[in-house]
Amino acid sequence: MTTLKNDTLLRALLKQPIEYTPVWLMRQAGRYLAEYNETRARAGDFLSLCKNPGFATEVTMQPLARFPLDAAILFSDILTIPDAMGLGLYFSQGEGPMFKHPLRNEAEIQALKVPDPGAELRYVMDAVSEIRKALDNRVPLIGFSGSPFTLACYMVEGRGGTEFREIKTMMYARPELLHHILEINAKAVTAYLNAQIESGAQAVMIFDTWGGVLSHAAYQEFSLRYIRQIIAGLKREQNGSRIPNIVFTKGGGLWLEAIADIGCDAIGLDWTIDIGEARRRVGDKVALQGNLDPSVLFATPTIIAAEVEKILTSYGKGSGHVFNLGHGISQFTPPENAAALVSAVHSLSRRFHSEGV
Amino acid sequence: MTTLKNDTLLRALLKQPIEYTPVWLMRQAGRYLAEYNETRARAGDFLSLCKNPGFATEVTMQPLARFPLDAAILFSDILTIPDAMGLGLYFSQGEGPMFKHPLRNEAEIQALKVPDPGAELRYVMDAVSEIRKALDNRVPLIGFSGSPFTLACYMVEGRGGTEFREIKTMMYARPELLHHILEINAKAVTAYLNAQIESGAQAVMIFDTWGGVLSHAAYQEFSLRYIRQIIAGLKREQNGSRIPNIVFTKGGGLWLEAIADIGCDAIGLDWTIDIGEARRRVGDKVALQGNLDPSVLFATPTIIAAEVEKILTSYGKGSGHVFNLGHGISQFTPPENAAALVSAVHSLSRRFHSEGV
Repeated sequence: MTTLKNDTLLRALLKQPIEYTPVWLMRQAGRYLAEYNETRARAGDFLSLCKNPGFATEVTMQPLARFPLDAAILFSDILTIPDAMGLGLYFSQGEGPMFKHPLRNEAEIQALKVPDPGAELRYVMDAVSEIRKALDNRVPLIGFSGSPFTLACYMVEGRGGTEFREIKTMMYARPELLHHILEINAKAVTAYLNAQIESGAQAVMIFDTWGGVLSHAAYQEFSLRYIRQIIAGLKREQNGSRIPNIVFTKGGGLWLEAIADIGCDAIGLDWTIDIGEARRRVGDKVALQGNLDPSVLFATPTIIAAEVEKILTSYGKGSGHVFNLGHGISQFTPPENAAALVSAVHSLSRRFHSEGV
Repeated sequence: MTTLKNDTLLRALLKQPIEYTPVWLMRQAGRYLAEYNETRARAGDFLSLCKNPGFATEVTMQPLARFPLDAAILFSDILTIPDAMGLGLYFSQGEGPMFKHPLRNEAEIQALKVPDPGAELRYVMDAVSEIRKALDNRVPLIGFSGSPFTLACYMVEGRGGTEFREIKTMMYARPELLHHILEINAKAVTAYLNAQIESGAQAVMIFDTWGGVLSHAAYQEFSLRYIRQIIAGLKREQNGSRIPNIVFTKGGGLWLEAIADIGCDAIGLDWTIDIGEARRRVGDKVALQGNLDPSVLFATPTIIAAEVEKILTSYGKGSGHVFNLGHGISQFTPPENAAALVSAVHSLSRRFHSEGV
């Protein structure tokens, strides 16, 4: 049984009654916070920050010290799995994540192995345990992973910010090779998320950052199919508590019905879809998480509150909504505007929940 | 009355009976063609190519000499209007389009003027006339413009490839300033497209390249509203021929019903939406143009034909479909694969048109 002091997030994800709409922010531990930049400077670089459980715990807790957020999210990178597979993740100044050894031929693809979460990814599990201790049951901890397709994009391209020429050429010309990578990735993500759950993650989220670059048919075949496999293999309970899961495909608004059909608990929405329309389309199948345009946080607290109100009103009454941005918070966000957002969600949402009247 | 030898494109856009599905390719005159690179080298740079009607005509005609395409499209840049407004368009190596004088304060915004298509944009009208002569009524010529919002993105950001922080900050914090820019842009685009029609363009297309970065509500207010104004102000007939128009919002698949409602003749689709589903959603209101993932052209002719067949089958029988890519053709496309695409569309589409049996 959970002993959480605030389990509003978990109840919202399971569409159970709540008093107000819970809120957390994608990338809530990040560069918009001076204390994050200070820790990162001490760690040396981004990857050292991720790989050191003490530092990871420190930055995970920072936004919770500032804002009354309803969840913590493990501080880590979405590319830990391919790094553990031996591809050699590094971060180049101004270039984002890169791999020293991207997959360049069939032999390398056939040689891919599922990493052991208790060995090569031990540092992530240690971070999960340490963060849980630091949280002291204040709010739930969300674990996460990149989706098989999103991981494959980086593994094949060797870096982000490309036009996906390498992976799409493989997808159309040698689909069986890509399917092999995706099978391995799906097994790796399942083991990785289950290990996070065993280490203490109380909800898990799959980030399908690049699924939205696919055609309708290719999304189903090369991304959603493997997310479905993961969802089917995830532990649903740990120590008597349900562990809800969230699937977020950026740019996936056209495919909500298909995503809702894979058996997940919640769908993350980017800001391009009206959340009320999304709710009508998925019905009672899943909860929804989102979906404020992060750029709204460049405006004023008054405007932020007005935009929050629009989303709450569009979603309407009842449980099943976790407020979030539609994408990670920008490094240029004034922290006081993040505070204004959290405060607006908490105060304005009570009237949408009968328990909150 | 039109004296076109091949008016299949115009008939498809107006949902009139056709014998086969017409095809053209966004950016069909471009870097994947050696002869284009040769002309560009002679011109000196990209902007000189656009601004010289002789060179613009030469490159516009190049893909037609290679492939039996059903349309030519004016070779130009989407940023000619802000350049004519005095913002100083230039192209930086590897950086794409940039402006020397982006809009940086309220006074600059208030001083914006609608350029005279017959003066500052005379070179575009001269290119249209010269291309029409070179085409000799073989296929129709499509004119085009960027959308008011897409132009504003570059005018405010000063360049592409940003995360739209400047324009979105303006949008949420000072919406009246952005509306002023968009009003001017809408008037400028209307005058520009009507001048292209008077100079000989036989269809026109509005490229809303960046509308897809907006939220559902912001898209309606800041992009679609101004495209609607343009559509309402466009000449519908010239010399006794109907001049169809096409609206393309990249990433706009969620908003098709709203786009179909503005009175346009056709909607361009990117590759993320299933074209059959798009057709069901818009009904008989508009024709559809699209929507092959340009990356399919990295595969083989056999695979290209299979993907073409899927799109034709999904659209189904009857007129109202113009085949195209869902985005501009990649510079890395083997030209023989573009040939395979055109050939596949022409041969495989006949059975979907009763006149083509």
